[in-house]
Amino acid sequence: MKATDTAGTTLRGKVTCVGLGPGDPDLMSVKADRLVRNASHVAYFRKRGRAGQARSIVDGLLRSDVTEFPMEYPVTTELCFSGDDYKQQLAAFYEHWTAQLLSLCGETDVIVLCEGDPFFYGSFMHLHSRLQGQVEVDIVPGITGMSGCWTATDIPITWGDDVLTVLMATLSEEELTRRATGDDALVIMKMGRNLPRVYRALTSAGRLQDAWLVERGTMPGQRVQRLQEVEGTVPYFSMVLVHGKGRRP
Amino acid sequence: MKATDTAGTTLRGKVTCVGLGPGDPDLMSVKADRLVRNASHVAYFRKRGRAGQARSIVDGLLRSDVTEFPMEYPVTTELCFSGDDYKQQLAAFYEHWTAQLLSLCGETDVIVLCEGDPFFYGSFMHLHSRLQGQVEVDIVPGITGMSGCWTATDIPITWGDDVLTVLMATLSEEELTRRATGDDALVIMKMGRNLPRVYRALTSAGRLQDAWLVERGTMPGQRVQRLQEVEGTVPYFSMVLVHGKGRRP
Repeated sequence: MKATDTAGTTLRGKVTCVGLGPGDPDLMSVKADRLVRNASHVAYFRKRGRAGQARSIVDGLLRSDVTEFPMEYPVTTELCFSGDDYKQQLAAFYEHWTAQLLSLCGETDVIVLCEGDPFFYGSFMHLHSRLQGQVEVDIVPGITGMSGCWTATDIPITWGDDVLTVLMATLSEEELTRRATGDDALVIMKMGRNLPRVYRALTSAGRLQDAWLVERGTMPGQRVQRLQEVEGTVPYFSMVLVHGKGRRP
Repeated sequence: MKATDTAGTTLRGKVTCVGLGPGDPDLMSVKADRLVRNASHVAYFRKRGRAGQARSIVDGLLRSDVTEFPMEYPVTTELCFSGDDYKQQLAAFYEHWTAQLLSLCGETDVIVLCEGDPFFYGSFMHLHSRLQGQVEVDIVPGITGMSGCWTATDIPITWGDDVLTVLMATLSEEELTRRATGDDALVIMKMGRNLPRVYRALTSAGRLQDAWLVERGTMPGQRVQRLQEVEGTVPYFSMVLVHGKGRRP
């Protein structure tokens, strides 16, 4: 049964959000590759003035007659939540693109490109929740950025009954320290200017010597370093990893 | 530079462990699909008397002249670690297949098939650590089973600065309860006969009403239920999920 929009009109199209994986186009799924190559209309998030990570992954794969919709964030999403104004601007942005996608679906299918796995800290979730009940929405999972990063270290992240804890570097130093204490495998994402806080937290937790920083996992310029040896600033999308040490026969 | 084995002989081949994703062959990466279709020699883990999950995913994709090496566990890996005898049997099994793969690499490349993502709780890690320094080993990451399962629920697993905790159902009830308490997003894997303990732990932690059970995520027979409504036994590879409730503008 076709979904209908709020006015009761039958929509011809649907929205498919395609997870593109950690960065190497060869790591897109067979399904994602097919959907991307056949797409007539694609939308993707990006920062103003940037190409956008999702768009970069599919470079050279899109049809020559594709219609593109860059969805440019009105504010940086790299800051911690900073009050009502920030929230309102982002909410208005998501409302706008929800309406745009619904309008497009009156005529055609739309592919939304997302790096990584859409339901794992992805921006598309904010459109997904708003599109619910108004149009058919499909999600294609992807290889997460963290899988790409731990593969880049050439060390397994979890063994046996290790616990894996995934943290955002935007958390407070106290919270990061508390979560990092113990012997869990750790993934800490969204590094950038949060790195010094993460460094201090891992030092307090006694995990610094086991921590790795991965930049551009699976992409050209991939870089894997012990966190202790990192100098200078690092990209927002770099990750800190501490591998598990679980049972191994 | 070609790797050499312990006797100093130059090995012609290398071992590539290919993550096959959560179960739907269409969710294999483009790279995995190409490697699987071109493979002359494939090895994969399985329980005695079973087809094996990894082998099932590639059904119909292998060359007609492929040589297959089923690596059959000598004991079930679904039990908790149960003493030295169990460990020794598994260690001998991994030693045996390390030697077999090295021997094959004297002549040819070998593809090892693994469901999910190899470095995320995968059995291949036990061969990887033993093969280190003896032969070239490549890892191709895959979409994790948990990504397949949370996509199946049609609800994002993590938002904003949600913490994700991944637990094995083999942990003690006390540990499961402690880890489940709070508002983290949770993934609990390796369910099977551990389900009653997980159920009690989530009840104690006040999370039962928000928990979902996913069986056969992305595969034929996929089943998504509220954990409260589950009756009877569930497969070992089913998962319990509790979604995050983080910030959302």
